[in-house]
Amino acid sequence: MLHLALCFIFVINMEKRKKSIQVCFTPVLFPLYESSESIVVVIDVLRATSAMVTAFDNGVKSIIPVSTVEEALTYKEKGYLAAAERDGIIVDGFELGNSPFGYMQEKVKGREVVITTTNGTKAINVAKNAHKVIIGSFLNLKAVADYLIKENKDVLFLCAGWKDKFNMEDSLFAGAVATELINSDFFETECDSTRATIQLYSLAKNDLYSFLGNSSHRNRLAKLDLEKDIRYCLQESISDKVPVYKNGSIVVG
Amino acid sequence: MLHLALCFIFVINMEKRKKSIQVCFTPVLFPLYESSESIVVVIDVLRATSAMVTAFDNGVKSIIPVSTVEEALTYKEKGYLAAAERDGIIVDGFELGNSPFGYMQEKVKGREVVITTTNGTKAINVAKNAHKVIIGSFLNLKAVADYLIKENKDVLFLCAGWKDKFNMEDSLFAGAVATELINSDFFETECDSTRATIQLYSLAKNDLYSFLGNSSHRNRLAKLDLEKDIRYCLQESISDKVPVYKNGSIVVG
Repeated sequence: MLHLALCFIFVINMEKRKKSIQVCFTPVLFPLYESSESIVVVIDVLRATSAMVTAFDNGVKSIIPVSTVEEALTYKEKGYLAAAERDGIIVDGFELGNSPFGYMQEKVKGREVVITTTNGTKAINVAKNAHKVIIGSFLNLKAVADYLIKENKDVLFLCAGWKDKFNMEDSLFAGAVATELINSDFFETECDSTRATIQLYSLAKNDLYSFLGNSSHRNRLAKLDLEKDIRYCLQESISDKVPVYKNGSIVVG
Repeated sequence: MLHLALCFIFVINMEKRKKSIQVCFTPVLFPLYESSESIVVVIDVLRATSAMVTAFDNGVKSIIPVSTVEEALTYKEKGYLAAAERDGIIVDGFELGNSPFGYMQEKVKGREVVITTTNGTKAINVAKNAHKVIIGSFLNLKAVADYLIKENKDVLFLCAGWKDKFNMEDSLFAGAVATELINSDFFETECDSTRATIQLYSLAKNDLYSFLGNSSHRNRLAKLDLEKDIRYCLQESISDKVPVYKNGSIVVG
């Protein structure tokens, strides 16, 4: 009888425990976080994860993220549709980079795409031993938040950053989803980086574009004449796709 | 004549170039930053750098930061006043840790103090090849800002963080000084972490204590009954000391 009562209390407590939220600002810091029981949300707002969400919206079958241009080239030679971006520019010899607009073409439909980018694909590969890895961007903000609430696991946001440093736009997206999770009442956080991103998003949310006005990466892309891409990537919740990384490739549903 | 004119233009441009500000959120990320021409401000608000500033206010002659408890012990055996803190607690066998109140005793006057702490002394040692390393805390905020404006060099804030992760209080201090530097008009920044700290400080400045209410380290110290220390460390500009690291030890001007 006592045994049964203890089991009951244990189950009640299990149900009561809120799930945790953490934010890792760059892939370099990832080894400091325990992720084997967590869902890792990989974020590269400008532009890798935004491009991936757009690709799935346009019928791409799967995406294989690779770390180097050489790997992407090997796949290309095998007949895959291959994308490579470094420092904001499509690498010579490739048709696609990480502009979402590149993935709005009929030719991507039903294809497997191999992609390597400056920051985003590295972040995905760093996280691959986590319980689960999903792809987040402002484009699928609400879908990601709903997915995390439904899965009810601890969450670790992994910002791709810029060349291993903190960046503003990825942190703002982490803050946006973290705000939704806290508001759901199923999550809590003791993590200072999460708190910082929630505060930053509260300042930025009414006009992300202006808030990012002086951010380093927005400036970097603006110099490359990619204002259109930036405005596209800052749209919130226009996609219901939640891409999931499984056994070396990214798929939906 | 052309040569002279070019020299003149060069001098004008040199004078015109604003100095840069960067914020490094944890010692792990320090190798990503170029610091050989910069002044590095090491920050460990709760509590190592606050304790150091307090020590100099109370007549300490110099502070030798060491990375390990073993090193501190070796100095202690040689007759130095030695301080060691790990996880918020004074290490067994030492009289002092990193509570500022420990350094308000008559016995510290004129002494050389050896100190090792969980995060702060590690950060100092990581930065030692920079052009110059100084010690910052809310206690000497204005003195640090004035010093940096006078020196007119690029500035890199190095937050000690907590066990290599981002922490809120160190970032807020970086934001506080960065705000002063930007307002002086001699500095500018293209660094997203600097912008983030400036934004966070703008939200926190009217009541640092409440803003840090749920921060991880404030909670950690509160559990150790160190509320008095926290309130002390969050006082702004009560000291005019700017401790500088030189050849293995920290001194004031």
